[in-house]
Amino acid sequence: MPATPLDSAVYRGLFGDDEVAKLFSDSAEVRAMMLVEGALAKAQGGLGIIPELSAHAIHRAAMEAQIDPAALSEATGKNGVPVPGFVAAFRAAMEAPEHAQYLHWGATSQDIIDTALALRLRQALTLFEARLAEILSHLARIASDHAETPMLARTYGQAAVPTSFGAVVAAWGFPLLRHRRRLAELRPDIEIVSLFGAAGTASELERRDEVQAAMAEALGLAVAADSRHSARDAQVALASWLAGLCGSLGKMGADLVALTATEVGEVKLGDSGGSSTMPQKANPVGPSKLVALANLTTSLSTAMQGAAVHLHQRDGGAMFTEWLVLPQMVAATGTALLTAQDLAAGLAPDSGAMLRNIDATSGMIYAEALSFALAKTMPRPEAQAAVKALVKTATTEGITLADAAKAAHLDLDVGLFSPTRSLGDAPDQARAFADAVRHAG
Amino acid sequence: MPATPLDSAVYRGLFGDDEVAKLFSDSAEVRAMMLVEGALAKAQGGLGIIPELSAHAIHRAAMEAQIDPAALSEATGKNGVPVPGFVAAFRAAMEAPEHAQYLHWGATSQDIIDTALALRLRQALTLFEARLAEILSHLARIASDHAETPMLARTYGQAAVPTSFGAVVAAWGFPLLRHRRRLAELRPDIEIVSLFGAAGTASELERRDEVQAAMAEALGLAVAADSRHSARDAQVALASWLAGLCGSLGKMGADLVALTATEVGEVKLGDSGGSSTMPQKANPVGPSKLVALANLTTSLSTAMQGAAVHLHQRDGGAMFTEWLVLPQMVAATGTALLTAQDLAAGLAPDSGAMLRNIDATSGMIYAEALSFALAKTMPRPEAQAAVKALVKTATTEGITLADAAKAAHLDLDVGLFSPTRSLGDAPDQARAFADAVRHAG
Amino acid sequence: MPATPLDSAVYRGLFGDDEVAKLFSDSAEVRAMMLVEGALAKAQGGLGIIPELSAHAIHRAAMEAQIDPAALSEATGKNGVPVPGFVAAFRAAMEAPEHAQYLHWGATSQDIIDTALALRLRQALTLFEARLAEILSHLARIASDHAETPMLARTYGQAAVPTSFGAVVAAWGFPLLRHRRRLAELRPDIEIVSLFGAAGTASELERRDEVQAAMAEALGLAVAADSRHSARDAQVALASWLAGLCGSLGKMGADLVALTATEVGEVKLGDSGGSSTMPQKANPVGPSKLVALANLTTSLSTAMQGAAVHLHQRDGGAMFTEWLVLPQMVAATGTALLTAQDLAAGLAPDSGAMLRNIDATSGMIYAEALSFALAKTMPRPEAQAAVKALVKTATTEGITLADAAKAAHLDLDVGLFSPTRSLGDAPDQARAFADAVRHAG
Amino acid sequence: MPATPLDSAVYRGLFGDDEVAKLFSDSAEVRAMMLVEGALAKAQGGLGIIPELSAHAIHRAAMEAQIDPAALSEATGKNGVPVPGFVAAFRAAMEAPEHAQYLHWGATSQDIIDTALALRLRQALTLFEARLAEILSHLARIASDHAETPMLARTYGQAAVPTSFGAVVAAWGFPLLRHRRRLAELRPDIEIVSLFGAAGTASELERRDEVQAAMAEALGLAVAADSRHSARDAQVALASWLAGLCGSLGKMGADLVALTATEVGEVKLGDSGGSSTMPQKANPVGPSKLVALANLTTSLSTAMQGAAVHLHQRDGGAMFTEWLVLPQMVAATGTALLTAQDLAAGLAPDSGAMLRNIDATSGMIYAEALSFALAKTMPRPEAQAAVKALVKTATTEGITLADAAKAAHLDLDVGLFSPTRSLGDAPDQARAFADAVRHAG
Repeated sequence: MPATPLDSAVYRGLFGDDEVAKLFSDSAEVRAMMLVEGALAKAQGGLGIIPELSAHAIHRAAMEAQIDPAALSEATGKNGVPVPGFVAAFRAAMEAPEHAQYLHWGATSQDIIDTALALRLRQALTLFEARLAEILSHLARIASDHAETPMLARTYGQAAVPTSFGAVVAAWGFPLLRHRRRLAELRPDIEIVSLFGAAGTASELERRDEVQAAMAEALGLAVAADSRHSARDAQVALASWLAGLCGSLGKMGADLVALTATEVGEVKLGDSGGSSTMPQKANPVGPSKLVALANLTTSLSTAMQGAAVHLHQRDGGAMFTEWLVLPQMVAATGTALLTAQDLAAGLAPDSGAMLRNIDATSGMIYAEALSFALAKTMPRPEAQAAVKALVKTATTEGITLADAAKAAHLDLDVGLFSPTRSLGDAPDQARAFADAVRHAG
Repeated sequence: MPATPLDSAVYRGLFGDDEVAKLFSDSAEVRAMMLVEGALAKAQGGLGIIPELSAHAIHRAAMEAQIDPAALSEATGKNGVPVPGFVAAFRAAMEAPEHAQYLHWGATSQDIIDTALALRLRQALTLFEARLAEILSHLARIASDHAETPMLARTYGQAAVPTSFGAVVAAWGFPLLRHRRRLAELRPDIEIVSLFGAAGTASELERRDEVQAAMAEALGLAVAADSRHSARDAQVALASWLAGLCGSLGKMGADLVALTATEVGEVKLGDSGGSSTMPQKANPVGPSKLVALANLTTSLSTAMQGAAVHLHQRDGGAMFTEWLVLPQMVAATGTALLTAQDLAAGLAPDSGAMLRNIDATSGMIYAEALSFALAKTMPRPEAQAAVKALVKTATTEGITLADAAKAAHLDLDVGLFSPTRSLGDAPDQARAFADAVRHAG
Repeated sequence: MPATPLDSAVYRGLFGDDEVAKLFSDSAEVRAMMLVEGALAKAQGGLGIIPELSAHAIHRAAMEAQIDPAALSEATGKNGVPVPGFVAAFRAAMEAPEHAQYLHWGATSQDIIDTALALRLRQALTLFEARLAEILSHLARIASDHAETPMLARTYGQAAVPTSFGAVVAAWGFPLLRHRRRLAELRPDIEIVSLFGAAGTASELERRDEVQAAMAEALGLAVAADSRHSARDAQVALASWLAGLCGSLGKMGADLVALTATEVGEVKLGDSGGSSTMPQKANPVGPSKLVALANLTTSLSTAMQGAAVHLHQRDGGAMFTEWLVLPQMVAATGTALLTAQDLAAGLAPDSGAMLRNIDATSGMIYAEALSFALAKTMPRPEAQAAVKALVKTATTEGITLADAAKAAHLDLDVGLFSPTRSLGDAPDQARAFADAVRHAG
Repeated sequence: MPATPLDSAVYRGLFGDDEVAKLFSDSAEVRAMMLVEGALAKAQGGLGIIPELSAHAIHRAAMEAQIDPAALSEATGKNGVPVPGFVAAFRAAMEAPEHAQYLHWGATSQDIIDTALALRLRQALTLFEARLAEILSHLARIASDHAETPMLARTYGQAAVPTSFGAVVAAWGFPLLRHRRRLAELRPDIEIVSLFGAAGTASELERRDEVQAAMAEALGLAVAADSRHSARDAQVALASWLAGLCGSLGKMGADLVALTATEVGEVKLGDSGGSSTMPQKANPVGPSKLVALANLTTSLSTAMQGAAVHLHQRDGGAMFTEWLVLPQMVAATGTALLTAQDLAAGLAPDSGAMLRNIDATSGMIYAEALSFALAKTMPRPEAQAAVKALVKTATTEGITLADAAKAAHLDLDVGLFSPTRSLGDAPDQARAFADAVRHAG
């Protein structure tokens, strides 16, 4: 593979995300920079800052010129940024030096890079919202269908009390609703035109506000009053959001690895991975991917947070760090969302296995319910002690807790030893989630 | 020092934050758990779930009982959570078993721990808002006073073009305004009553919604429809916010380390650190702390993000991770805010040094302005080439760029070689920040 | 709790490590600094650099003087380092200014801090070696005892082929042997006398080499030719080692959480955690702690690695970062080793459960073995296809793979459907580990 | 750019490393897997485990067959690992099913993947050793040449005492010598043949030890007694080493950014970056890259350390995490070494600027030396107080510390106010480093 399987032909079927890959390719980056230069020129032309004819020529060339990404490599290596080489190549491609001289008028490299990134992030984040909606819709359907399907709740890996599969699915989904809200809150900080000039002061950017407004209008972005060259809190917040989202998807992945484990077997995935030597294996590949992508984005977000300590008015080390980190975080998140979408579309509970696992606990999971039932006739600490003793008896004698309890407490309401009686508000939570998705959609 | 200087008597003057320390102490944790149990009992008593007399007794005891934190250590070690030992100690302290039996009715450990944390986080975050307001107010004053004080903008550590000290300060402050908005967005996810029962299904929590609502009213928190036992996105978002804020403060710190460096000397700090062997030293201790606290919170936020992958309905490993990480992130952020507050209150620019540093560049920082001036009479690429040549001439001959330019372009408007002429919109950004603080306040 | 449960009275039973806590306390730090100053004075006195009488007075005071850690707080806050305040307090405590003036002669704060840390790290690392030996010895016993105890190997959570419990335990232990070797490799870089002076050049440290050698002799440390003030690779390597070790212990912890899960139940822990509301629960507290401590040390090691980028000859931000991170990494590792030691001493396999889980796979785990058996009489790809079909048949008809295979291949050696026949070299690996521990011990 | 600029055509000149890229490409990965399968077959053929004719055919095909990496994508996506699809493609390419059936005999995917990685890591690490040697040789030359070139030592960014440029360079180099030693220590853990079978027990790997030994011989790797499928400490140690090395190079980078800053100007780089709008700029691109690559590898090593918590006998999430992280850490380290090599080859001190900066401190950097000189005639605390007063006098009156001191202490040896007199053992450290490189080479 190349430096990362996210860029690999071999691993494309595993980690690839064609839609995001289209946004984060060398040619997409060059195209986005052309769009930004075109919009800048058009805005400056419209305001009479550069000749309108030149603006027109630049804007048209921004649509049509062909620039070979690989041809920018040498100048990028020398300058540390692709823009000087790109501007030179763009000018050359225009074959009209009298107009080309007005290209990139008063702008600095970071203006172009950051705005070109904002353009592609806008598309990526819109895509992510659509994928989130799709995932949420699948999860809502499952939560609703299985609001009352009993399964074991597990704490520390131990059978705890009954819950419902719908509630488990809702617990995957509720955080996604919150992540969606958070995304909406942070997008306006990200999807902006950066036009701040050499050191953030718009030193040679005549009528900066108007130019920025016109570019924003043309590019579908917002404006920003303050220079963001060295104020990278929005990029950091985006990275944290990406890691946070992947973390929540990673929890769903980890749960699915655990729920598909041989001894649990409560969930079937739509499609699973084979082994090169064990014919019986059907590995939870998708869920494992979610865990790995959570790990990756979590670790990368450290570097983004560190890059908030961005020295003076521009800091090469911090800027390069962002370049090395943010695109792959977006790519990884795209893959995570695709993976979660596939899983959510295809997963199905095995309600029989869920009941079998409940039965296999010999009723120990009703211990809490039993202690509350007994507490109606004795103090709660005594009831808890009594139940502890019954648990021990049942374990030692190899009988169910129900049988042990009935022997000791003849008038006990044995109906409590039933998963459906002990669901608590699991069904309500499942349905509340389904409703929340419907209303939010 | 103990495990961390944040808890050290020696380092208290350096890293301590007495107000946050009061919230994150063993006794504060025990007190907060008592408050939560008291509110739970009172709510359940009011709804007739437990006897009103017992509820009253518990609620009163929650105010008055004395529980020694150290006495909980053994049981905490055995159970992995402090609550069972705490409940036993609380019951014993009540000396009224007939009432004490109704303590912790239907709740689970995590309900108490998370709500007790929410109570203290509410106080900490309110404190943080106040400190942010204080910092912003100082920065706004400085930005306003020095909106037109020229200083060098530096990119990659190199003199770039002039900016103003006010604009530099505004670039520290604008992100803080955004962090403040983000904090307001995330607080409602954090400051909630957790009352979800053994596995998040309120299995033995009769009339959960009403109890939760009554507790929320009593404790000044909000309610949550969905169980957060294993959905930790809000905790993760808080950790990311803390790291993000510390990152922005760390940028201010890094800038101040650089601006107080011997060769730059453009800022004086109110108070600085001595050396044990070099009598002349006045070290930028506060700024260095800001950098270190950014490093710490950044690294810890990784663990919090990782803990989002919280298995099943409760995951001991993930839960313990949060305990090991979140309190110290809050403590570190408190110290960072205190430090920034002191710095913002005391720092002062040395405008003479700023001008000297500008002069020392021999006018090279006007190269961009010169290239635009020349571009009025020749194509921009030619103008850029001409300026490159003039820069070389000036460097070789040891003269200023102004002199080199005047020699070559006799009719040049030499007024452009002036820092105040080249401030761009730096003064506007500085004032816009001061206005934003005033209006937000 | 305080900033971290590692320093908490409530959580001491859970996260505390009394032996490490004794090394990382405020008073231990002060005592260590006194020892270093005492050794410095004695060495300088012996070489005639300072008056021998004064050296003697300082050295004796270093053993006897009482310095209140809390009294250093204010000066530490002002200076950014505890040493100037400490030296002043030490001088005052000596009540003999004519001798006290020779205290800290030519040294810089970092010399004292780093050497005092090296002293305590030496003790901590020696302790860690002893604990590692203890853990290894327990694991070797179990591996040896259960070299042939069959259990399921699991890949992706899926039953794979049989292994033995001894081999599983060996896989926890082999990395610990390597960590022990790595520790031996890194200790000489850590356990050194730092005596490099104000900026690493020993500017006022007469006969530095001889003084350092004498101190090294007295303190049981080694010497270093090159200044380590800003070359922090050894500290970083130590942090990586701590995180690496905790990661390997965390893998053992994660395995134990999984192996004690209700549905698996293959391992019993010596002692387990209770629930505040579920009387039947016995939570794998120790294993969960191992996972959490791996998470903590992993995240903290990021900050240590980042602090390798230590600017110029001393960098306050990087130095403070180390202080905030390294002691708690040591404390966390101490707790992890204690926890692993307890677990290793107490854990026991439930070989009956292991066999039941093997049986429950209906022989699917012999699919690989079957495919190789069939490959004796047909090409391997055909054999693999045949086994895939048999797996499907067995699953559909609800019979074992053995029965399905026997029906289709009458002359098949059915002995292959036996866990003990399929252990591969698991027993050898288990015994090789036990041997390696014996020989290394 | 693609997911990372490390894989980008535009950024190849900036972040690319052609030699490492050749090792970490899709086709290199496929080729390496072929080599491993070829060596496996040859070893098994030689031992009579598979027919020798088939072994020969496979081994030859491993040299000659053409497998299109992109054709593996679909199966890789389905299986989660490239090996099943690769084995199928390899068999098909052989066009000799009677031999092809013996391909991949008894091995598991991870055996092939890990050994194929070990092969390429061996090449990469050999390359890294060569580059380290090159860097060390350049640094040794500079350290030796400038062992006595005085420059300011800076602590907290403040002028401290004099040092020499050679000593500064030595402080970059000494850690590299230690990293080289550490690399030698860890390579044997990494460069091994993985041949452990489906779940680490060599279940269907007849005569595993002999096969492994033969493969090791053929591939130039070592053997391992214990399965490494789930014991990932060596991979983690490698990642820590990569991050540690990049951290030390990042320190050199950060120092160079600071030393080339306009106000300091003490070092000239061979080649520097241009600005798209500021003709005078020569940005320290290479040093900034070193800082960014340290940030990247530091953050990624977190994920590798986390992946040490590798569940059971194979953990998809942990395995995928390694794939997403380790190759790009190697690529990033390659680029960092190349960058450091270029810098070390080209950098030159500006000794005039160094002296000017020393002079600009008005002799304050001799304050420590002055206090020791005065301490010859008065107690040291008095001497320190006297120097503090002289520093204040000098600052207030705008005179040098020398003049202030001479006025107050008429018989003072004024020779101490000389950088060359105050170098301490800086020249010795510089020469010791140069010697160490020569002797190590």
